[in-house]
Amino acid sequence: MALPVSLTDTIVALSTPPGAGAIALVRLSGPAAIALTDAVFAGKRLRDQPSHTLHVGTIRDGARILDEVVVSLFRGPHSYTREDVVEISTHGSDYIVQEVLALLLRHGARLAEAGEFTKRAFLHGAFDLAQAEAVADLIAADSALSHQVAMRQMRGGFSQELKELRGRLVQFAALLELELDFGEEDVEFADRTGLVQLLQEVQQLVRRLLRSFELGNVIKNGVTTVIAGRPNAGKSTLLNALLNEERAIVSEVAGTTRDLIEDEVSIEGIRFRFVDTAGLRDTTDVVEAMGVERTMKRVQQAALVVYLFDITTTTPTELKAEIEALKLPAGVGVLAVGNKLDVAPDTDQEAFLTRIGTVLIAASRGDGLDELRQELLARVRLDGLDRTGSSTIVTNLRHAQSLEQANQHLDAVLTGLSIGAGTELLAADLRHALAALGQITGEISNDDLLTSIFTQFCIGK
Amino acid sequence: MALPVSLTDTIVALSTPPGAGAIALVRLSGPAAIALTDAVFAGKRLRDQPSHTLHVGTIRDGARILDEVVVSLFRGPHSYTREDVVEISTHGSDYIVQEVLALLLRHGARLAEAGEFTKRAFLHGAFDLAQAEAVADLIAADSALSHQVAMRQMRGGFSQELKELRGRLVQFAALLELELDFGEEDVEFADRTGLVQLLQEVQQLVRRLLRSFELGNVIKNGVTTVIAGRPNAGKSTLLNALLNEERAIVSEVAGTTRDLIEDEVSIEGIRFRFVDTAGLRDTTDVVEAMGVERTMKRVQQAALVVYLFDITTTTPTELKAEIEALKLPAGVGVLAVGNKLDVAPDTDQEAFLTRIGTVLIAASRGDGLDELRQELLARVRLDGLDRTGSSTIVTNLRHAQSLEQANQHLDAVLTGLSIGAGTELLAADLRHALAALGQITGEISNDDLLTSIFTQFCIGK
Repeated sequence: MALPVSLTDTIVALSTPPGAGAIALVRLSGPAAIALTDAVFAGKRLRDQPSHTLHVGTIRDGARILDEVVVSLFRGPHSYTREDVVEISTHGSDYIVQEVLALLLRHGARLAEAGEFTKRAFLHGAFDLAQAEAVADLIAADSALSHQVAMRQMRGGFSQELKELRGRLVQFAALLELELDFGEEDVEFADRTGLVQLLQEVQQLVRRLLRSFELGNVIKNGVTTVIAGRPNAGKSTLLNALLNEERAIVSEVAGTTRDLIEDEVSIEGIRFRFVDTAGLRDTTDVVEAMGVERTMKRVQQAALVVYLFDITTTTPTELKAEIEALKLPAGVGVLAVGNKLDVAPDTDQEAFLTRIGTVLIAASRGDGLDELRQELLARVRLDGLDRTGSSTIVTNLRHAQSLEQANQHLDAVLTGLSIGAGTELLAADLRHALAALGQITGEISNDDLLTSIFTQFCIGK
Repeated sequence: MALPVSLTDTIVALSTPPGAGAIALVRLSGPAAIALTDAVFAGKRLRDQPSHTLHVGTIRDGARILDEVVVSLFRGPHSYTREDVVEISTHGSDYIVQEVLALLLRHGARLAEAGEFTKRAFLHGAFDLAQAEAVADLIAADSALSHQVAMRQMRGGFSQELKELRGRLVQFAALLELELDFGEEDVEFADRTGLVQLLQEVQQLVRRLLRSFELGNVIKNGVTTVIAGRPNAGKSTLLNALLNEERAIVSEVAGTTRDLIEDEVSIEGIRFRFVDTAGLRDTTDVVEAMGVERTMKRVQQAALVVYLFDITTTTPTELKAEIEALKLPAGVGVLAVGNKLDVAPDTDQEAFLTRIGTVLIAASRGDGLDELRQELLARVRLDGLDRTGSSTIVTNLRHAQSLEQANQHLDAVLTGLSIGAGTELLAADLRHALAALGQITGEISNDDLLTSIFTQFCIGK
């Protein structure tokens, strides 16, 4: 394809985080990257230097020395973007970076848009769209598991799996198209029985990927876990114990917590975002009533609710009634947790454990927290997915949507086959399924899609 | 000299600012920098590669891929520290950086202390101490002038000037020491008349450098400028106008400003740090009285006081009395500024202008602000120093203190010569003067001095 006009520009941006530091990197990419740097760099003529070499010199604005720098030279296509790339390593001063950027802009470079380096790499075929998106995921990764999933995707594991799926469908699609060319003659090049079997296999794989999105979403975004319960059940104490720090104000006065407090705890690579809430009770205090209302609202939006109760003041019957009163939507898990075991060690634990299935803890002493963590993990419904991350896990909503489209179109082909639909209909549905899969890796893309993806990147990437 | 034990370690640190970004740089320096990277880098054997080359590969912790990276290889002495240096360019994720650092530490690297890369460069003779200090100044530079002064110092301009001063003294010092060796014979190898002339010349240069510190300090730290005046004179409005933004709460109620508000404005490369204050008046309000007290205290510490008055309610006589009541210490400049010219355009401006020497403005409309800025610049007493920064300007308090010591010891030598003091005394004073000058560039240094200098650097530099 003809390259977009914008690829003839030479772009420049700060590629390291802003702020004072030892080193800042200013990156250029494009046809004039080397000539443009030569115009401001005193030391060597970069255009005479080989690729993958480092050069010490100064950046000069006329006679004024802006900085002593080290320049990295990458000649296209042996670079991140596949274009000529120059990285200027300056002292880590915002002032110097601004001056160097301004100087390069005056010499004809253009400030890069967010994600434009990676977009160029994609447009030049350095990698596909799913891999490009994984670059942003990798930078955002903050746990071993999210890092591993992003790394696998960036290195093409997911793309390879999709390519195989498409490859298997493409051959049959070609045969169907061939039948259309012979439309009048009513021939069947494509073996219908074989097609059904193939479609079922492919659909099974697509559905496995779709199911993995539940885990992928949890890995990427964490599990919103609301801690609810009566006032003084010990919710803030539990949150503090889980966070190992005093993030909530703990007080003996019932109704202390009115604001919703959030924080995250990583349990075996899964992030639980805990939300502490106002205690649930009938109240005449207006501010507290607002807190209760917000709690009820938040409970409805949770992925998981930890219902905390005081075992010294709550009967199993009351507990059951209170949990039912939460009116949790289907799909929201609930875990009843009995607190203050230290105050009442002789409580009839059996009644709670067998009738409700609770975890008993002493939040103030930290007793039972390990068991609670394991129960939390168990409640995240991962449908037996391999949580080691060794198989492909879909983490991107866009990919999940495309897979869902592919799944539906495959359904349509299978239905068509079962009712003996015409080749034309089958071929159309199969084309749609292939297009949906192709969108994921960017074999089928458009400017709007690319813009919406790459503007989520940071500048300089 | 024998190298300190710590130089046998290989050090590692993140050299770019923390936070999410496109790229992060992890830097290693020391004898094992290359071998240590080879142990975790898959792609090429770095030990077989020439200096100043770039290599693409992956960082691996066993089978686990931490990141796809580009490695820069600098073989000592052709590196910043003069040791073997490796820079690993990773994706800009805190998680990845932490994992890579932890991996390198497990393989035997040690986390670098603040400024340790630059300290090693100094210890290996890459540059002298004044140049090393300029690296930190350069990173902190936030204006054209402070950048220019730091750049000149880093590139050795200041060091060269000091070297010439010392060189001229050293020869005479050597002749004096020779006389001491012939102590009994009462010979004079060193021509006393020539020595007086030389000492006077050197002292003149030392004093010029000392004087330049006043400007250097202003360039580096800015001019603390307190805006004082009666309540409702328009102080907050003036500050806002100068800052071009609404940083102070402006209100019609007298006594609105109780906290001291600070912000900076750069005027021709000189930073003025403006401090807005509580209005000065007798008050019975306790909180406001505390504000007035703080204002008076702050006025005493200012480099410059802008006394703002309302020309519609203040007579020249009152103005004079109010400024005298500030009891400004000697050396603190004061600039009287008449406000609300827009409300009373027919005021007898002549009386203010000729009797007090004021600037008249209308802060709410921005009238007169350019003239005010010029007056502010004029009030910073720079003793006719060259503000273009083309000559050497001392910006470092430590350097100024050493120059002051040198100045005093030169005084002592000159006094000794005028009263015909013995060679021993002259030689001792001259040695002290040379030592004071040598401390600046680090020809004479000790561990405590180096520690106090380099711990002010950021980690990774």
